[in-house]
Amino acid sequence: MRNLDENTITDAVLKRHEGASNVRLGAVMTSLVRHLHDFAREVQLTEEEWEAGIRFLTEVGHITDGNRQEFILLSDTLGLSMLVTAMANRKPVGCTEATVFGPFFVGGAPVHRNGDDIANGAGGEPCFVSGRIMGLEGEAVPNARIEVWQADSAGFYDVQYEGDTHRARAVLHSLPDGSYHFRSIVAEPYPIPHDGPVGKLLAALGRHPWRPAHLHFMITAPGYERLVTHVFRDGDRYLDSDAVFGVRSSLIADWIHHEEGVAPDGTRMQSPFSTLAFDFVLNRSS
Amino acid sequence: MRNLDENTITDAVLKRHEGASNVRLGAVMTSLVRHLHDFAREVQLTEEEWEAGIRFLTEVGHITDGNRQEFILLSDTLGLSMLVTAMANRKPVGCTEATVFGPFFVGGAPVHRNGDDIANGAGGEPCFVSGRIMGLEGEAVPNARIEVWQADSAGFYDVQYEGDTHRARAVLHSLPDGSYHFRSIVAEPYPIPHDGPVGKLLAALGRHPWRPAHLHFMITAPGYERLVTHVFRDGDRYLDSDAVFGVRSSLIADWIHHEEGVAPDGTRMQSPFSTLAFDFVLNRSS
Repeated sequence: MRNLDENTITDAVLKRHEGASNVRLGAVMTSLVRHLHDFAREVQLTEEEWEAGIRFLTEVGHITDGNRQEFILLSDTLGLSMLVTAMANRKPVGCTEATVFGPFFVGGAPVHRNGDDIANGAGGEPCFVSGRIMGLEGEAVPNARIEVWQADSAGFYDVQYEGDTHRARAVLHSLPDGSYHFRSIVAEPYPIPHDGPVGKLLAALGRHPWRPAHLHFMITAPGYERLVTHVFRDGDRYLDSDAVFGVRSSLIADWIHHEEGVAPDGTRMQSPFSTLAFDFVLNRSS
Repeated sequence: MRNLDENTITDAVLKRHEGASNVRLGAVMTSLVRHLHDFAREVQLTEEEWEAGIRFLTEVGHITDGNRQEFILLSDTLGLSMLVTAMANRKPVGCTEATVFGPFFVGGAPVHRNGDDIANGAGGEPCFVSGRIMGLEGEAVPNARIEVWQADSAGFYDVQYEGDTHRARAVLHSLPDGSYHFRSIVAEPYPIPHDGPVGKLLAALGRHPWRPAHLHFMITAPGYERLVTHVFRDGDRYLDSDAVFGVRSSLIADWIHHEEGVAPDGTRMQSPFSTLAFDFVLNRSS
């Protein structure tokens, strides 16, 4: 345990973890230390680069608060989030695919009834969203908890504004036939927050910060696996370069544009609006 | 760039880094992403574990401030700091070895003259430290900038107390013959701060947080490589289990205990004191 050099230090660190009472934690940290050290040796990480890394992580930590999660943004942009999501969601064919959770979920969203306008003042063209929550055999899943959240037409989620007002964010429950419907606004592409350290890193790597337009869903129902996913908007220019690598073809849908007239819920709209229909198929929990 | 799965996502992420104008940054991030993804695949990292990791890093970020650097503590305890230090300091035989920088350095230490008592009230048995700064051919290095810092007998550095008072922390300059001498306090073993997330991680891994007693030195002189190192205290019970893996045999020295009497600088001491003699050999800068 003395005179450790760049080659002997890894095993010395791992030897200390042999006493871990939590066997899984010991295994995870063993792999993490091995890869962290292999990375540093492979690139011959310099002291100045190490210092830059410490400064970067410190900035990520300091910009993170209850409304901004820069560590999730970092994980998302490095593809780690989508990788973990993919491993955790190997579902049978026919189930709706999962995608990244993202950094903009917050708890405590207001509970709405089907048919409500959840925009609550969020800017954007009105959009009527509807569909069904089903199981793999096509069975209706009634009373599923459906949490939805999205950015407004300026590209910001409610939590990115001052104040605590929830906008374009709601909890709904599916009806007895598994259906749901609500009014919100049309999703638009937006850049992930790029005024912080992660944005600077993306710029230095020559990467753009844009995400294709999408609407977040998190659906839970007894007897089924939780589904965390998005619906993406067909035709979006960023579908093939999502900053967080989340796009699945099966999650792309048509936002159908309508001129003024009668909306699906009977509302007479004085201005253009859109409709989106999307069904979700949940996997049975094992 | 759509439908990325757990195997295809890594190359997709790396493809985005091809546009990096900073070639070195691109190379470092390529290796980092590969190892990060390999780690996640190897342990089959779950969504819950990913969430726990995000929470852990968030806590590390939030406890870090101008006086506490939990990210350095994390790097130190995972052996990354010593690994980087070892790679950056492959010095010719005969040079004083480097060791970890640690999280307790702060700039702005008071400049003292040789012979001064730098303790400035820090608790501990008085200790008279002396030695020479030399080059590899034994040549004296005059006017080298010597920055020293250490914990007090309670195991705390000045920056761990309220207020901005520097204690047992100073800048000195070697004399024309390369020698230096100052009065401080005896170094004692101490636990690294373990009331935060890194301390919790160590406990979960069955690891103790102790470091063997040591005195930090950072020495700079024109024409020589900067030397960041410690002098460790012989006989310390933690020399073979340093929480941050920094011990080198060549850096271990005798703190010689004396009963009351005349100190090396002529001071008549009414109570016991110690002396430490240590010479430093700097490497020529290339």
